[in-house]
Amino acid sequence: MTPLNRRGFLLSSTALTLVRPTFAQTQTPAPAPTDVTRALARWIVSARREEVPATVRHEAVRTFLNYIGCAVGGSHHETLDIAISALSPFSGPAQATILGRKERLDILHASLMNGISSHVLDYDDTHLRTIIHPAGPVASAILALSETRPISGADFLHALIVGVEVECRIGNAVYPNHYTTGWHITGTTGVFGAAAATGKLLGLNEQQMLYALGLASTQPVGLQEMFGTMTKSFHPGRAAQNGLTSALMAARNFTSSTQSLEAKYGWGNVLSTARDYSQITAKLGTTYEIAVNTYKPFACGIVMHPTIDGCIQLRNERKLTAAAIDRIDLRVHPLVLDLTGKKTPAIGLEGKFSIYHAAAIAIVEGAGGDAQFSDRAVQLKDVVALRDRVTATVDNSIKEDQVRITVVMKDGQRVEKFIEHAVGSVDHPMSDADLEAKFHGLADSILPRDRVRQLMDLCWRIETAPQASAVAKAAAL
Amino acid sequence: MTPLNRRGFLLSSTALTLVRPTFAQTQTPAPAPTDVTRALARWIVSARREEVPATVRHEAVRTFLNYIGCAVGGSHHETLDIAISALSPFSGPAQATILGRKERLDILHASLMNGISSHVLDYDDTHLRTIIHPAGPVASAILALSETRPISGADFLHALIVGVEVECRIGNAVYPNHYTTGWHITGTTGVFGAAAATGKLLGLNEQQMLYALGLASTQPVGLQEMFGTMTKSFHPGRAAQNGLTSALMAARNFTSSTQSLEAKYGWGNVLSTARDYSQITAKLGTTYEIAVNTYKPFACGIVMHPTIDGCIQLRNERKLTAAAIDRIDLRVHPLVLDLTGKKTPAIGLEGKFSIYHAAAIAIVEGAGGDAQFSDRAVQLKDVVALRDRVTATVDNSIKEDQVRITVVMKDGQRVEKFIEHAVGSVDHPMSDADLEAKFHGLADSILPRDRVRQLMDLCWRIETAPQASAVAKAAAL
Repeated sequence: MTPLNRRGFLLSSTALTLVRPTFAQTQTPAPAPTDVTRALARWIVSARREEVPATVRHEAVRTFLNYIGCAVGGSHHETLDIAISALSPFSGPAQATILGRKERLDILHASLMNGISSHVLDYDDTHLRTIIHPAGPVASAILALSETRPISGADFLHALIVGVEVECRIGNAVYPNHYTTGWHITGTTGVFGAAAATGKLLGLNEQQMLYALGLASTQPVGLQEMFGTMTKSFHPGRAAQNGLTSALMAARNFTSSTQSLEAKYGWGNVLSTARDYSQITAKLGTTYEIAVNTYKPFACGIVMHPTIDGCIQLRNERKLTAAAIDRIDLRVHPLVLDLTGKKTPAIGLEGKFSIYHAAAIAIVEGAGGDAQFSDRAVQLKDVVALRDRVTATVDNSIKEDQVRITVVMKDGQRVEKFIEHAVGSVDHPMSDADLEAKFHGLADSILPRDRVRQLMDLCWRIETAPQASAVAKAAAL
Repeated sequence: MTPLNRRGFLLSSTALTLVRPTFAQTQTPAPAPTDVTRALARWIVSARREEVPATVRHEAVRTFLNYIGCAVGGSHHETLDIAISALSPFSGPAQATILGRKERLDILHASLMNGISSHVLDYDDTHLRTIIHPAGPVASAILALSETRPISGADFLHALIVGVEVECRIGNAVYPNHYTTGWHITGTTGVFGAAAATGKLLGLNEQQMLYALGLASTQPVGLQEMFGTMTKSFHPGRAAQNGLTSALMAARNFTSSTQSLEAKYGWGNVLSTARDYSQITAKLGTTYEIAVNTYKPFACGIVMHPTIDGCIQLRNERKLTAAAIDRIDLRVHPLVLDLTGKKTPAIGLEGKFSIYHAAAIAIVEGAGGDAQFSDRAVQLKDVVALRDRVTATVDNSIKEDQVRITVVMKDGQRVEKFIEHAVGSVDHPMSDADLEAKFHGLADSILPRDRVRQLMDLCWRIETAPQASAVAKAAAL
């Protein structure tokens, strides 16, 4: 792994850990519990969709739409081409859609492939407290399953909510210790989420759900060392596949531990140096982790988001052009220069680590999508010229989701913008319209334009869909 | 997990850890190395079968024969029935044999199933230093692969040697810390062995082999909490499947870390509290771990083996019958009563934890195979009567592979037997004839008798076989 890639990891994780409480470390150890897994399994089995508040369900719909957009957008990445060519000779029946593509594979392989696509652009959703990308493992597994049996959109959405709840609660219980040990938490908790959600749709009873969680616990996926390689996006895909496998085996009563989370040699002890199991069991069915899910507006680490947001706003409000600008001065949170201080990026990936490029491309193109971090974008003449006129100064009064931008025009005029909460942050979530714009940016080059519209409408209306699989079918090429 | 099952684990592991040096703990930490994975990958790619001494190759043949016997013997266990019924609807083409059965599945699923069979009776091979059961993950993966392309028996055997070398060396580097953390080391190291062996047969270059090891490292399988459930034998199966998957993806240049073992967030640091990487790289190609592989003569934990060995010998030498015996007095190593002190086993599994049953059934039936630890066996009238006349006394002068047996006959006569090294121990390995007898005990109830003979002959002659797949074909029902 190159230093660049390691920094890429930090960019989307450490930044966030600094501002959040570290629950697992600060709790007083409770007596070793014996019924954590059972309490969780019981809730999964008994949870009813009517109990979920409408606001939570709407956030789940947004999560699902963002997932579909990301997976379609990533579906023609080389990573997926290789995975499909390597494994499709061993696929079973053509049961399930590969989003954005023509191929159909068995549901286990489809789960893997769609999970890879959803993460390969590093543009998917984020549960900020744990840095879990929740949708990939869960949605990939249940969407594939939905193509083999009748599953209503309402049940499908509820399974997504349940699966995300399970993975994020398990993540809450071990964060940050599990993460700082070196595990890629999306893959290690995602397998539980996928097992729970597919187990719910398969109608597992409590004992079977315990088996499913046990099988999931023994198949964690993901070392952080893989960041910067294709194997990173393999993690949520394999988590989806392993979770679905677990539920299918549990449905036939393949036995497993019934205390897989809390036992002495169970997941919580073996994979983390600290854990607080009350984070798994307290207020189950009362609070919902999917309600605090977030979506990236820009295809790069979050520390650059305030700058991109502000530059796009200034550009649009003031009709700024690169040629008219003398210089751009940024006052930024300290992590910005630690993580994204690259002055002269030569390729697209390096652009994701350059605050100078980020400011320049946002002015020139008014966007921060995947196309703005391509080789093309970092080599654009106007962008290269403008980025050399960007300065960034650390200001300890600036918070992580903030930036203060001063643009000095060649005519001497100065325009300023203070971003208090960047778009996509907890305090300034992306709007539904923002999510649609992001979806277009991801899907328009893959699917016909009218199909993109149809697909978004199917996502928005998932709760009333007679068959959840309609979304998968509409997302096939 | 029940206490009984936890003890079942201890029976086959802790007993051994007490007498072996703990390399990973006692080494002085070396400077963090940067080329462990590369050195290993380079050796895997460049190793030539002509370099392997004949004695090592013969031990590999014995390992393979024992593997085939165990897998055929376990092939109709309920665990496998369930796994096949749950997952075969998603299998690809009928490419590969499920040993001992009629079904054929794609090679990924076949690897899984044969790995499960090989371990489900707890009767497979053991690398004593690490408690790795080496053959299951490696042989299951390469045997399946051999059914899709021409692989000579000689190359096949060499891949088995290489794969076992890789998994056991990685195990040596982290044992015992990795094990005491709670990992089932057969599943966590087995995935490397399977990736290395199948990667070798696929002709991966060094870079691709690094990718294969990287993909393997990020898919460890197995928490010890699963012991006592069907999921325990799932571990070597899934390790085989994950390792084969890794090699197949690496062959298409699916990128991964090139320092997956030694990196800060790599396998060695994340999955163990201590590690000594010199155990992986020192004397590569000079020493062979498969040369010290061992095979269980009896279908139970090793602490009972001296007693069973001695009782069978006494029975055969003295023509003992249960009816003529007044009592049997055993002087045993302390662990024997800790682990196998159950006085009145009611079912077969409990019999594996009763030194009293073990002595009695060995006298009555002259064997200690799977049939002697069945419900039938523990309920046999003669056995129940005799076991109540067995006493066991701890004697600190008795070593783990020893026992002192005194049989007092009803006519007052006394016969004694001191077992210095039980059969199957390092100092008293099973003979080739012993392995054949074990094979018969496992396979005779599954395959026609002449097929069993043919199958053993194919195993013994694997090095000269034009096609390794002939063994798989002969082992199909």
